[in-house]
Amino acid sequence: MFKAILGAVLAISILPVSALAQEAGGEPSAHTVFVFNTLLFLICGFLVFWMAAGFAMLEAGLVRSKNVTTQLTKNVGLFAVAAIMYWLVGYNLMYPLGDWLIGSDEAGGYFGAIGFAVLEAVGVSAEQADDIGYASTGSDYFFQLMFCAATASIVSGALAERIKVWPFLIFTAILTGIIYPIQASWKWGAGFLDSQFGFLDFAGSTVVHSVGGWAALAGVIFLGARSGKYKNGKVTPFLGSNMPLATLGTFILWIGWFGFNGGSQLALGSVGDAADVSRIFANTNMAAVAGALAAMIITQLVYGRMDLTIILNGVLAGLVAITAEPLTPNLFQALIIGAIGGAIVVFGVPLLDRLKIDDVVGAIPVHLFAGIWGTLAVLITNPEATLYGQVVPIIIVGVAVFGSSCVVWAILKHTVGIRVDEEAEINGLDHSEMGVEAYPEFTN
Amino acid sequence: MFKAILGAVLAISILPVSALAQEAGGEPSAHTVFVFNTLLFLICGFLVFWMAAGFAMLEAGLVRSKNVTTQLTKNVGLFAVAAIMYWLVGYNLMYPLGDWLIGSDEAGGYFGAIGFAVLEAVGVSAEQADDIGYASTGSDYFFQLMFCAATASIVSGALAERIKVWPFLIFTAILTGIIYPIQASWKWGAGFLDSQFGFLDFAGSTVVHSVGGWAALAGVIFLGARSGKYKNGKVTPFLGSNMPLATLGTFILWIGWFGFNGGSQLALGSVGDAADVSRIFANTNMAAVAGALAAMIITQLVYGRMDLTIILNGVLAGLVAITAEPLTPNLFQALIIGAIGGAIVVFGVPLLDRLKIDDVVGAIPVHLFAGIWGTLAVLITNPEATLYGQVVPIIIVGVAVFGSSCVVWAILKHTVGIRVDEEAEINGLDHSEMGVEAYPEFTN
Amino acid sequence: MFKAILGAVLAISILPVSALAQEAGGEPSAHTVFVFNTLLFLICGFLVFWMAAGFAMLEAGLVRSKNVTTQLTKNVGLFAVAAIMYWLVGYNLMYPLGDWLIGSDEAGGYFGAIGFAVLEAVGVSAEQADDIGYASTGSDYFFQLMFCAATASIVSGALAERIKVWPFLIFTAILTGIIYPIQASWKWGAGFLDSQFGFLDFAGSTVVHSVGGWAALAGVIFLGARSGKYKNGKVTPFLGSNMPLATLGTFILWIGWFGFNGGSQLALGSVGDAADVSRIFANTNMAAVAGALAAMIITQLVYGRMDLTIILNGVLAGLVAITAEPLTPNLFQALIIGAIGGAIVVFGVPLLDRLKIDDVVGAIPVHLFAGIWGTLAVLITNPEATLYGQVVPIIIVGVAVFGSSCVVWAILKHTVGIRVDEEAEINGLDHSEMGVEAYPEFTN
Repeated sequence: MFKAILGAVLAISILPVSALAQEAGGEPSAHTVFVFNTLLFLICGFLVFWMAAGFAMLEAGLVRSKNVTTQLTKNVGLFAVAAIMYWLVGYNLMYPLGDWLIGSDEAGGYFGAIGFAVLEAVGVSAEQADDIGYASTGSDYFFQLMFCAATASIVSGALAERIKVWPFLIFTAILTGIIYPIQASWKWGAGFLDSQFGFLDFAGSTVVHSVGGWAALAGVIFLGARSGKYKNGKVTPFLGSNMPLATLGTFILWIGWFGFNGGSQLALGSVGDAADVSRIFANTNMAAVAGALAAMIITQLVYGRMDLTIILNGVLAGLVAITAEPLTPNLFQALIIGAIGGAIVVFGVPLLDRLKIDDVVGAIPVHLFAGIWGTLAVLITNPEATLYGQVVPIIIVGVAVFGSSCVVWAILKHTVGIRVDEEAEINGLDHSEMGVEAYPEFTN
Repeated sequence: MFKAILGAVLAISILPVSALAQEAGGEPSAHTVFVFNTLLFLICGFLVFWMAAGFAMLEAGLVRSKNVTTQLTKNVGLFAVAAIMYWLVGYNLMYPLGDWLIGSDEAGGYFGAIGFAVLEAVGVSAEQADDIGYASTGSDYFFQLMFCAATASIVSGALAERIKVWPFLIFTAILTGIIYPIQASWKWGAGFLDSQFGFLDFAGSTVVHSVGGWAALAGVIFLGARSGKYKNGKVTPFLGSNMPLATLGTFILWIGWFGFNGGSQLALGSVGDAADVSRIFANTNMAAVAGALAAMIITQLVYGRMDLTIILNGVLAGLVAITAEPLTPNLFQALIIGAIGGAIVVFGVPLLDRLKIDDVVGAIPVHLFAGIWGTLAVLITNPEATLYGQVVPIIIVGVAVFGSSCVVWAILKHTVGIRVDEEAEINGLDHSEMGVEAYPEFTN
Repeated sequence: MFKAILGAVLAISILPVSALAQEAGGEPSAHTVFVFNTLLFLICGFLVFWMAAGFAMLEAGLVRSKNVTTQLTKNVGLFAVAAIMYWLVGYNLMYPLGDWLIGSDEAGGYFGAIGFAVLEAVGVSAEQADDIGYASTGSDYFFQLMFCAATASIVSGALAERIKVWPFLIFTAILTGIIYPIQASWKWGAGFLDSQFGFLDFAGSTVVHSVGGWAALAGVIFLGARSGKYKNGKVTPFLGSNMPLATLGTFILWIGWFGFNGGSQLALGSVGDAADVSRIFANTNMAAVAGALAAMIITQLVYGRMDLTIILNGVLAGLVAITAEPLTPNLFQALIIGAIGGAIVVFGVPLLDRLKIDDVVGAIPVHLFAGIWGTLAVLITNPEATLYGQVVPIIIVGVAVFGSSCVVWAILKHTVGIRVDEEAEINGLDHSEMGVEAYPEFTN
C-alpha cells in the first residue's frame, strides 16, 4: 500500500508541478517583467532624449543664419534647466502618489508633493525596489524627465530670433519645474483630470504638446512679432537658413517619437504589452507619413508646389495628433488622424500670420492645434473616452497653462525684459547675445 | 506512519520540483521569448527607420545646393508613399503564407495575397496572438516596412538633380506596393526562390539592395544623364555640396545596418539567437570598416589621394556585401567580403561614367554591384548555399525588377514625363519644382 | 483514509510548488539573464558606435571649412583602423583572462595574450557558450571595440588642421592595437591596477578618456601649433565653421554616453542590475546638464556672454567626469561632479592657450583634465575607492600612455613626417591632402 500511496502521491505531486511548468513556460517571472519594463523606459528614454537634438536641429535650420548660434545655445540651455528643475521639484510634483499637498488621492489631487527626486539604492533588491510590479524608479525618472524637457523645447522654436536667452531660461525653469509637472500630475499623477473626468491622453497630445503650444502662444503674444515680419499689411517670409538641418531635426523627432509613444505603454513584459508597444510603433509611423502626405498633396493643390517646411511640420503634426491615443486606432484610423493633423498645419500656419502671431517654426499649429485635434480624436477609437472628459480637460489645461504662462511672461517683460533691442535683432542675436557666428565663413 | 508517508511525500514532491527548478533556470519561457523577439524587431525597426534619415542626408550632401530641397522632399515623400503602399497591399503580397493567389505554398508561390496589413488586437493574449512562437505582428510589420522603404530610398539618389518629384513618387508607389513585395515574397514569403532554389539572402543583398539598384538603373537609363555631365567625351564632376552631411548620412546608414542585419535573425530569445545577433553586429561592422579601408587604400594607390565620397561609398558597399550572409562568416571572412565590396565601388563608379550612366550618388555600384557580390559571397561561408541556387535567383530577380521597372519608367516618361526641362535643371530643381532654397544665405 | 492522505499530500505537494512558484515568479532563468546581458551590450554598443559619428560632426564643426573634408576622412579612417587593429590584436591583449604573457592572473598581469578575436560558433548552445553567466562573446567584443575606437577619436580632434592623414592613421593603429588595450587590461582585464591597487574606473574616465587625452597631448606637442595661432604673444581665435554640426556632434556623444556608461554595468538581467543601469542613465544625464550649466554661468560671469563651443565642451566634460563612477553618486552628487567638469573646461581651454598647446577642439581639457577629475571624484561617493588606489594608477597610466605616445610620435615625425607644409596648411588640407572641398559652393 505504501507503494500505492507513493504512486498516488507521485501522480498528484507531478500534477501541480506540470501545471506549474506550463506556467513557468508561460508568463515571464516578476523579475523578468521588471527588467523588461525598465529596459523599455531606458530605450524609449534615450529616444525621447534624442528629440532634444531634433528640436535643436529643426529650429537651427528654420531660423536665419544670424540667429543660429543663439538658437542652439537656447536649446542646450533649456534642456539643462529642465533636467535640473525636474529633479529639484518637478518629478515629485508630478507623481505625488498619495502625498498631495492640495487635494486627496481619491478625489484626485491638484498640487503634488515637494521634494527632489530620489533613485533606488545601488544594487536594489526586489524587496527594496520601489515597485517591483512596475519598473525601476531611475528608468521611470529618466523617461519622464525627457517629456518635461520636450515641453520646453516646443516653446523655444516659436520665440526664436528676438528673445533674450537668460529670460527665456528663467521661463523654462518655471515651466519645467512648476507649470508642466503640476498640470501633468492632474492626468498622469492620478490627479483630478484622471479621476474625475476620465481624461484620456496616452502619451501627451495635451499634457505635453498643447502645453508647450500654450506656453509658446503666451510668449509670442508678450514678445511681439519679429521686426519687419508684418509690414504694411504684408507678411514677409523669413527663409530658414538650412533645410537639411530642418529635415534632419524632423527625422530625429520622428524616431524619438517611437520612444515617446511606445514607452508610454509603461510596460513591455507580457505578450499583450509587447504587442501593444508594437501597435503603437506602427500607428505612430502611419500618422507621421499621413501627415507628410496630406501636407504634400494640399500644398500642391493649394499653392501649386510642395513646400518642404510645411511637409516637415506635417510629419510633426501627424505625430502630435496620434500621441493622445496611439494604441487603439487601427492603421487606417491612424492614417486619418495623422492626415488631419497634417492638414491642420497647412491651414494653421497662414492663419497665425493673418492674426500677426509670429511663430517662427510653426510650433503652435503643430503642437497646440494638432494636439487639441489628437486629444479629441481619442473619441473616434477609444470607447472609454467621453466628449465631456476630453473637452473640459483640454480647456482646463489650456486656461491654466496659458494663464500662468502669461503671468510669468508679463513679470519677466516688466522686470528683466524679454526682447533684444531692434539693432541687436537686425544684426542678429549671434552678434549681440553670443559673439559667435554659426557659419562664419558662409555668409557676409 | 502518517509522518513516514509525509516524509516520503515531501521528498518525492521536492524531486520533480527541483528538476523543474533546473528547467526554470534554463530556457526562457515562451512568453519571454515572444517579448524578446518583439523587442528585437522594435529596436532593429527603429534603427532601419533611421536609415531613411541616412539616405536623405547622404543624398542631400552629394547633390549640388540648388537641388537639395528637392532631394530632401523626395526622401520624405518616398518614405510616406512606401509606408502607405506597404500597408495597403505590400505586406500581404510579401507574406502570403498559405494564401498565394498564384502558386501554392509547397512548390513556392509567385504572387501573394491581396489585402491591407492588419495588426493584432489591443492587449492580445498569448492564445490570440498570431504566432506566439515568433513575435508580435505589429513589430514584424514595423520592421519589414522599413526594408521596403529602404529599397525606394536607394532609387532616389541615383535619379537626383533632374527627375520630377511626383512621377518619382508614382514610381515609388509601384515599386513599394507591388514590385518589391512580390519579389521579396519569392524568398522571404517562402515563395519559389526559397523552396525551389534554396536561395540564401539573409538580410537582402539581393532582395533589398540589388532590387533598389536595378530599379535605379532602369530609371537612370530612361531619364538620361544630367545636362553637361558627359560633354565632348569628357566626364564633368559635379561636386557634392556638403561633405559633413554626406558623412553623417553614411554613419546613420551604418548604425541602421546593425538593425537591418541583426533584426533579420528574426529571433533573440535564446542563447543561440542572442549570440547569433551579436555575431551579426560584429561582422556587419567589420565589413563596413573593411569597405572603408579598401576604398582608402585603393584610391590612394590609384589616384594618389583619398576621396571621401568614395570612402563613404566603400563603407556602404561593405555593408551591402555582408548583408546576404552576416552570420556564418568569421571576422576575417567578413573583412574580406567587405573589402571586396569597397573595391567594387572604386572601380564601379568610373565604369558607369564610361558607360554614360549618370548615377548621382553611386547607388548602382554600392547597392547593385556590391549586392550581387554579397549574394555570391554566401557561397564562401555558408555550406547550404549552392552556385545554382544563388546565381539563378540573382538573374531572375534582376530580370523581373529591371524589366518591370523599365515598363513603369517608360509609361511614366511617355505620359506625365519624368524629367524637368533644361532651364529648370540649370536653375536648379529647388527653384523650379519647390520654390524653397536649401541654403538661401550661403550661395548666390 | 486514502482521501485523508491524499488531502495531506495535496496540501504538502502544493507547498513546495507554491514556494517554487515564487521562485519561478522571481529571478530570471540563466538563459534569460544571458539574453538580457547580451542585449545590453548590443544596444549600448550601437550607442557607443554612434559616438564615432558624434566625434566626426563635432570636429568637422569646430575646424575651419578648408579642413573639414580631411577631418571627416580622418574620423572614418581612424574608426576603420581601430576596428581592424582591435580585432587583430587588441581584444585579446585587453582581456587575456588567464593567458597573460607577462604577469600572472593573481598578482595581476602587465601584458596580455596575442591573437585575434574569435566569436562563438553560429547558434551556440548554452553549454558551448564562452560564459553562460555573462553574455555572448560577440556582444562583448562589439561593445568593447567601440570603446577602443572612441579613444582614437579623442586624439583626432586635438591634432586637426595640420596633421597628415596617413601618419595619423599609423599612430591610430598603434594606439588602438597596442597602447589602449594593454593599459585597459591593467584595469578591465583584471591586470595589476585592478588587483594590486583596487583602482576604480567604472566606464573609463581614465582608461578611455584620459588615455585619449594623453595621446592627444603628446601629439600636439610633437606637431606644434597651427600656423598663426600664437603670433606676437597673442592668441588668434580660429572660428569653427559650423556650429549646428558641432552641437549635433555633442548631442550624438551625449546619447552615446548612455550606452558608454550604462553598458559598463555589464549586466541587466536582475532587478538590481536593471535598477543600476537606470541609476547610471539618470546620473550620466545629470552630469552632462550640470557641465553645460556650469559652463553657461561661468562664461556669462567671466566673459559677459555665453560661448556655445565652451558650453558644448562643458556638456562633454560633465560626461567625462561622471564616467569613472556613474553608479554610486546620487543625483545631487552627479550634478556636482558634472559641474566641476564643466568648470574645468572653462578654465582649461585658456590655460592650454597660455601654454601654446594648440588643441583645436578642446579635447585635452575635456577628456584629460575632466577625466582625471572624474577618476578622483570616485573617492567622494564610492567607499571602496582609496586615494592611493586612484592617484597612483592615474599617474601610471599617464606616464605609460604619454610616454609611449611620445615615442611613436617622435618616430613618425622623424621618418614619414607628421605635419603638412605651411603652404598646404594655409590653403587648407582639403585642397592639399584630399582634393575635395567640404562646401564647394559656400566659401570662396
